Amino acid sequence: MSHINTIIFDSYGTLFDVHSLSNKLENHFSGKGQKISQTWREKQIEYALLRQIMGNYATFFEITKAALTYAIKKHGEQTNPEQMEELVAAYLNLDVYPEVKGVLSQLGNKQLAIFSNGSHDMLDPLVKNAGITTLFDKIISTNEVKEFKPAPASYHYAMEVLNSQKENTLFVSSNGWDISGAENYGVRTAWINRKRLPVEELNLMPDSVYQDLTGILEWV
Amino acid sequence: MSHINTIIFDSYGTLFDVHSLSNKLENHFSGKGQKISQTWREKQIEYALLRQIMGNYATFFEITKAALTYAIKKHGEQTNPEQMEELVAAYLNLDVYPEVKGVLSQLGNKQLAIFSNGSHDMLDPLVKNAGITTLFDKIISTNEVKEFKPAPASYHYAMEVLNSQKENTLFVSSNGWDISGAENYGVRTAWINRKRLPVEELNLMPDSVYQDLTGILEWV
Repeated sequence: MSHINTIIFDSYGTLFDVHSLSNKLENHFSGKGQKISQTWREKQIEYALLRQIMGNYATFFEITKAALTYAIKKHGEQTNPEQMEELVAAYLNLDVYPEVKGVLSQLGNKQLAIFSNGSHDMLDPLVKNAGITTLFDKIISTNEVKEFKPAPASYHYAMEVLNSQKENTLFVSSNGWDISGAENYGVRTAWINRKRLPVEELNLMPDSVYQDLTGILEWV
Repeated sequence: MSHINTIIFDSYGTLFDVHSLSNKLENHFSGKGQKISQTWREKQIEYALLRQIMGNYATFFEITKAALTYAIKKHGEQTNPEQMEELVAAYLNLDVYPEVKGVLSQLGNKQLAIFSNGSHDMLDPLVKNAGITTLFDKIISTNEVKEFKPAPASYHYAMEVLNSQKENTLFVSSNGWDISGAENYGVRTAWINRKRLPVEELNLMPDSVYQDLTGILEWV
C-alpha cells in the first residue's frame, strides 16, 4: 500500500455532508426536509448519468437546481424563485465531515486534489467557505472536460492535470458508483463507506474500505 | 397526432408490473418484500446506466441478478443459490398491467414492437409467459447492439430494425428516463405516468402524458 504520491478526493458525500441540507429544507417544508433532501441528491446523480449517456451536457449547478425542482414537486410542495435561490445557495455552504481537516493535515507531503462532478461555480465557493482551499494543490471539475464521472475520460482528464500515474494514485470517494468508475479506470481506490452499505455488485471491488476518512492514513 | 404507423413499447414498468415481485420477496423476507423490490429495481436501472457510461457491458439479466444480490444485502438479509434462482425466475413471470391486452388489440393496423433493455434470455420468456407474443411484430433488445437506453444509439438501432421514421413513430414508456431518452433522440413520446410523478427536469418534455396505456389510443 505504498508508492502513493497523489490522493484525489471526491467532494459531495466524501468531504462534504450533502444531507446537512435537510435542516434548511425542513425550515421551508415542515416534516419533509429529509425526504426532499434524499430525492434531491438521488435526482442530482441520476440527471448527471442520464445527460452523460444522452450526450446532452449541462453543468452540475444547473443539474442541481433541476433536481431540487423535481424533489420539491415530487413531495407535493411548491416553491418560488427567492426560496430556490436560498436553497441552492445552501449547496455552497455544506458542512465538512468532522475528521476531514485533521486527516488532510497529515497528508501534506502528497499531491492532494479534489475531483468533482460539481462545476467550479459551485465547487470553488464551497471549498472556500469551508476554509480548506489551501489544503489542496488542485481543484478539478469534470466541467473542464464535460465528461461526468464515472466516464473513463473524466478520470483520465484528472490524471493528466495532476500528471500522475495510475499505480501511484489513490482515489477516495464515499459514492459507490464513483469508486466503481475509478476502479474501472484503473487507479487505486478507498471507499469511504459512511452509510455502511454493501459493495456495489459491478465486479469492481474497491482496494480498501473505511468508515470515515481516517482510514486512508494506512496508505501513506 | 396522426401519421403514427409504428408504436414502440418499453417493457418493465410499462407493460409489466415489476413490483408484482414484492409478494414473492415477502414470502422469503417477511416485512421487507416491498423495500427489497424497490431497491432491486433502482439498482437494476442504476447498474445499466453505470455500465453504459463505464463502457463495461453486461447483459440485463446479469445486471438483474447483481441488483437483487445488492438489494438483499442492503436490507440486512442473506440468500442462497436456490432462492436466488427462484427469485430471478419471477422476473420471467411478471404480471401484465390489466389494460395492456385490450389496448394492444385496438392497434392491429400499426407496426407494434417491444424495445427493452432486457436481454432476450429474460425478455422472450416473459412475453411468452404473458401470452402476448403474437400481438407484436418485433421484440427488440438493446443487447443486440449492446447500447442501453437512454443512449441515442440504442433508439436508433430499434428504428433501423423497424425501418420507421422518427415523425411516424410513437415511443411509449412509464420510465421518465426512458421517455427523456426517446425525446432526446427525436421520436414522438407518450409517458405512462403510472405513479403520478412530476415530469423529469431535463428540458425534454414528453409529447403526451397518460395515467395508463389507454391514453395512447388518442394517437391512432
